[in-house]
Amino acid sequence: MRIIRTIKEMERISYRALGEGKSIGLVPTMGALHEGHLSLIRQARRDSDLVVVSIFVNPAQFAPKEDLKIYPRTLAKDAKACKKEGVDIIFHPGVALIYPKNYKTFVTVEELSDRLCGEFRPGHFKGVATIVAKLFNIVQPAIAYFGLKDAQQSAIIKRMVEDLNMPVEVKVMPTVREASGLALSSRNAYLSEKEKKDALILSRALSFAEYLVKNGLKDARRIIKAMRQLIKKKAPARIDYISIVDADTLKPVKKISGNCLIALAVRIGKVRLIDNIYLNGDTLAARIKNLRVRRKSVPS
Amino acid sequence: MRIIRTIKEMERISYRALGEGKSIGLVPTMGALHEGHLSLIRQARRDSDLVVVSIFVNPAQFAPKEDLKIYPRTLAKDAKACKKEGVDIIFHPGVALIYPKNYKTFVTVEELSDRLCGEFRPGHFKGVATIVAKLFNIVQPAIAYFGLKDAQQSAIIKRMVEDLNMPVEVKVMPTVREASGLALSSRNAYLSEKEKKDALILSRALSFAEYLVKNGLKDARRIIKAMRQLIKKKAPARIDYISIVDADTLKPVKKISGNCLIALAVRIGKVRLIDNIYLNGDTLAARIKNLRVRRKSVPS
Repeated sequence: MRIIRTIKEMERISYRALGEGKSIGLVPTMGALHEGHLSLIRQARRDSDLVVVSIFVNPAQFAPKEDLKIYPRTLAKDAKACKKEGVDIIFHPGVALIYPKNYKTFVTVEELSDRLCGEFRPGHFKGVATIVAKLFNIVQPAIAYFGLKDAQQSAIIKRMVEDLNMPVEVKVMPTVREASGLALSSRNAYLSEKEKKDALILSRALSFAEYLVKNGLKDARRIIKAMRQLIKKKAPARIDYISIVDADTLKPVKKISGNCLIALAVRIGKVRLIDNIYLNGDTLAARIKNLRVRRKSVPS
Repeated sequence: MRIIRTIKEMERISYRALGEGKSIGLVPTMGALHEGHLSLIRQARRDSDLVVVSIFVNPAQFAPKEDLKIYPRTLAKDAKACKKEGVDIIFHPGVALIYPKNYKTFVTVEELSDRLCGEFRPGHFKGVATIVAKLFNIVQPAIAYFGLKDAQQSAIIKRMVEDLNMPVEVKVMPTVREASGLALSSRNAYLSEKEKKDALILSRALSFAEYLVKNGLKDARRIIKAMRQLIKKKAPARIDYISIVDADTLKPVKKISGNCLIALAVRIGKVRLIDNIYLNGDTLAARIKNLRVRRKSVPS
């Protein structure tokens, strides 16, 4: 495994691999890798000849008052985990190479970027779409992997790839959870033990919503109200939003039908956490089962 | 030569060519081809194995009140000219394939897009950058060709390619002019015989500016003032702007030095025309000579 720190060198490796007829799989990350990332890497390893994991804490997707400076950076540990999973290349460029002086170009996926988290993190998804477009051009993957935990991000990347005719397949992999139900996130590292318990309210509220839907409640407004009440009753948490939206367009729906997403963002102390579940009339039973198959907790 | 009307078929051709080790040259156009376009095509023919000319009148770069509906569409004539120049593929997709329902993604080159023409055509360069990004992904060119007549467009495309790490070389070719000095443009077709004479004021004002610079005038404000006076005196024309800017950043300069661009947009009757010259201390003499080597007039 090699750690590549310049764009030129990464491009050279990508084009040599393509020239040799190899397929490239890319897992874009901001590092602080957890089992969720590793599940993407394992899928990439199954699919592709050359597996590239990019580790880049992307300033363009952080607002001025957000956690860019304190975001966990654990390269040595990440490299060890990647090596164990058979990763070929870690692409770890510096900020000044990715956004040089006079940098001016941004990719925007309109409307989808303004909903859900976009309302609370203006500019965030513009930063995400831009870095992903750059990474696709530098690494030239046939397949790129994203986690369903960031459902809005996945919807936006899929929309961008389709709209801009990018020659990349986007694979979105299921959210990995601790045994407790807590969705894995690099930001869980910010939580105290007490907050970690409080944070269970996110997955619990989603499970509750699924239970309600399974028992026939289809009215989005009423489901959201019930989730809100549960959260207020059970945990010291500040709700940014609870939304039920079409999974592709991210437009709010009034009634559960077709391919829906229930998503929420909640602040536990100073830590903003997100979680979501997909609901689909046809596969709902299967998905609920899936949600209950919880992985073992991993040390953070 | 083949005319390809779907994205899928164009992608199939591009990837087959790349698989065979062929290089692709792309000349993106809106059709109504003139000698300016043909000079790009000839360069592409010299450089590349597979020459693709895209012909797509791009709605995203026209504002609601602009000339989208009446923009000249002359496919049969364009195809004949392309065939004569040895073009392999004309890519001529329909609008609904390029911008399907639910299309949401746009590429913006900030600041550069707001200056010069951007001030008078808000959204124009966002439309340009977006369609060019899409064409690059669909056609996968090693080299793409643009005319220096649209100097701001060239600067923006070059910035986008560098910023987004697109694996494309951008070649910008000199403006082709009629014997009279009039820069070739598909929009010249809108001009009456009288207006065509009035339109000579653009290249005359630029030649005058070059003359002033050659004779030692370096102050941008004074040069612009002199050009403005000449235009007002000589022709019934409405000036959108006359600007002297850095050729890469498009920021206004106070003094002629380094790599500058003198650009103007002028309305002759209802027709908005643009023209420009590059000024560079080192190569000024050569460039003035170049401006004076005027091609024969081509039938419009």
